[in-house]
Amino acid sequence: MTGTPVAVGIDVGGTKLTACSLDANASILVRARTRSPVGDPELLLDEIARLAAEVGDGLPVGVGVPGPVSRAGVISHAPNLDVTGLDVGAGLTARLGRRPAVTNDASAALVGEHAVGAATGHDHVVMLTVGTGVGGAVLVDGALLEGASGHAGELGHVLADPGGPVCGCGAVGCLEAVASGTAMTRRARELVAAGRPTLLAQADKIDGHALDEAARAGDEVARTIRREAGEHLGRAAASLVNVFDPSLVLLGGGAGVNAAGDLLPPMQQVMRERLAGFARPIPPIVVASLGDDAGMIGAGLLALRASGQKP
Amino acid sequence: MTGTPVAVGIDVGGTKLTACSLDANASILVRARTRSPVGDPELLLDEIARLAAEVGDGLPVGVGVPGPVSRAGVISHAPNLDVTGLDVGAGLTARLGRRPAVTNDASAALVGEHAVGAATGHDHVVMLTVGTGVGGAVLVDGALLEGASGHAGELGHVLADPGGPVCGCGAVGCLEAVASGTAMTRRARELVAAGRPTLLAQADKIDGHALDEAARAGDEVARTIRREAGEHLGRAAASLVNVFDPSLVLLGGGAGVNAAGDLLPPMQQVMRERLAGFARPIPPIVVASLGDDAGMIGAGLLALRASGQKP
Repeated sequence: MTGTPVAVGIDVGGTKLTACSLDANASILVRARTRSPVGDPELLLDEIARLAAEVGDGLPVGVGVPGPVSRAGVISHAPNLDVTGLDVGAGLTARLGRRPAVTNDASAALVGEHAVGAATGHDHVVMLTVGTGVGGAVLVDGALLEGASGHAGELGHVLADPGGPVCGCGAVGCLEAVASGTAMTRRARELVAAGRPTLLAQADKIDGHALDEAARAGDEVARTIRREAGEHLGRAAASLVNVFDPSLVLLGGGAGVNAAGDLLPPMQQVMRERLAGFARPIPPIVVASLGDDAGMIGAGLLALRASGQKP
Repeated sequence: MTGTPVAVGIDVGGTKLTACSLDANASILVRARTRSPVGDPELLLDEIARLAAEVGDGLPVGVGVPGPVSRAGVISHAPNLDVTGLDVGAGLTARLGRRPAVTNDASAALVGEHAVGAATGHDHVVMLTVGTGVGGAVLVDGALLEGASGHAGELGHVLADPGGPVCGCGAVGCLEAVASGTAMTRRARELVAAGRPTLLAQADKIDGHALDEAARAGDEVARTIRREAGEHLGRAAASLVNVFDPSLVLLGGGAGVNAAGDLLPPMQQVMRERLAGFARPIPPIVVASLGDDAGMIGAGLLALRASGQKP
């Protein structure tokens, strides 16, 4: 059964743009994708507008972008796209003839998971996304946490270890600096350079894929790297449960979902240990279920809501 | 000019109960206080009810309590009062003949500061209260952050140092374990025991008062203890700004206000350093301005709102 298209959702990633049209039940009707133009903001906006027209010309458009976005729709900085200060809201309004809903990709993913994924039925949710970096989004009473200037939810930059490595943001010991995909592969390279016996030493390139293969083969170094990242995520999750008192913690992002088998058990254990002294219920940690589709579904739903329609 | 009393606010502390009646402008009309009965829940409820009748018989009553409170008004554990699982909501309803608004003391203080104190005009606020422990409260779009079960805002239990001391909650390295009044006096005792030259070695008792006197006299050890606590508070504030994107960070609590001269400069500096890499505005940190009155004023305002009246 195919519904009537009511909105377009677009997920802007560092490597690809994916788009879809949605019906009123948030089911995907038509899909399209293309490679992300990196370092060329005008072409990026052109391609987003082209995909939007391709999957649902004239419908409300929502866009999830990989970086902090102001309430007005300006990306302050998205290193994966090599853009800074890009006014996505104005740029797409000019191209589409209507104002898009622009949000952070993690926020879009959480809206998608809340509507039709792993967070259905939960109105207080903390989502941690582990990919190239660590991102996040928070649902408070069913609404996305936005903050005074629209930049709330930068969960990758909570303190994880004041004696830890310097983060890409310049601060010492952020969660992202010890638990992102990038942090895990950097740690792998350090351990290979230190001569630790590991399958990773034989990899052509020590990247997320090599770490994944080594972990699957039972390599102790690879498993330890993931376990330690999971422990950091567990400590951060405990902090965030103390702060937000959610009924659910969601683990998402490419690396987060992919490595969930190794990340989740230590994350659960450490979070539970840190929360054992409180009378409050301890929320479960579950893995995001919509995969790469979460962001575009959520972006489409946000467009629909911004247009005054339900859901 | 004296207004008409519209609500009663009561702050339940570990040493004293303070109560007041408020007019519609949140001005205090009548005050009362008594010593807190510790370890006797029935007497505690009796005394709260007696103070309420004394300052404003028959008015809506709001109570701020020193510990986590469920949405139903049950204190899970308040070590300073030596009570566990106390149903303040039901106990006071029986005594007052009407349901009180029961909230955490830090949340009550933030509501007071937001209405008539240092947070006026800010609808996104993170408040850290430094006293015997470290507490906190958060305002999101003008509303108190409550969470799924009413226990949100336990900001004293965010991770400050994974290699740090064990917190009263049982977890390692919580903010409370390194930056509370208790943590500062413990550190003072450690340094005196280690033979560090300090005025604190001559104090009859090494407590918050002795630390305060030594710091005022320019004692290096006392100043260093406060500076290090301020740095921890600054790292935590940076994490919380990344999470909430507030327009204001508020420093409150007895020790927080009292030691603000020593705590605030390192707290500001460390927070700013950690946030320098982000395009987002960096909020100021200001000191709470209502002192001990904040909690009872906020509790009274919450009672007024719960009764369906404004503000």
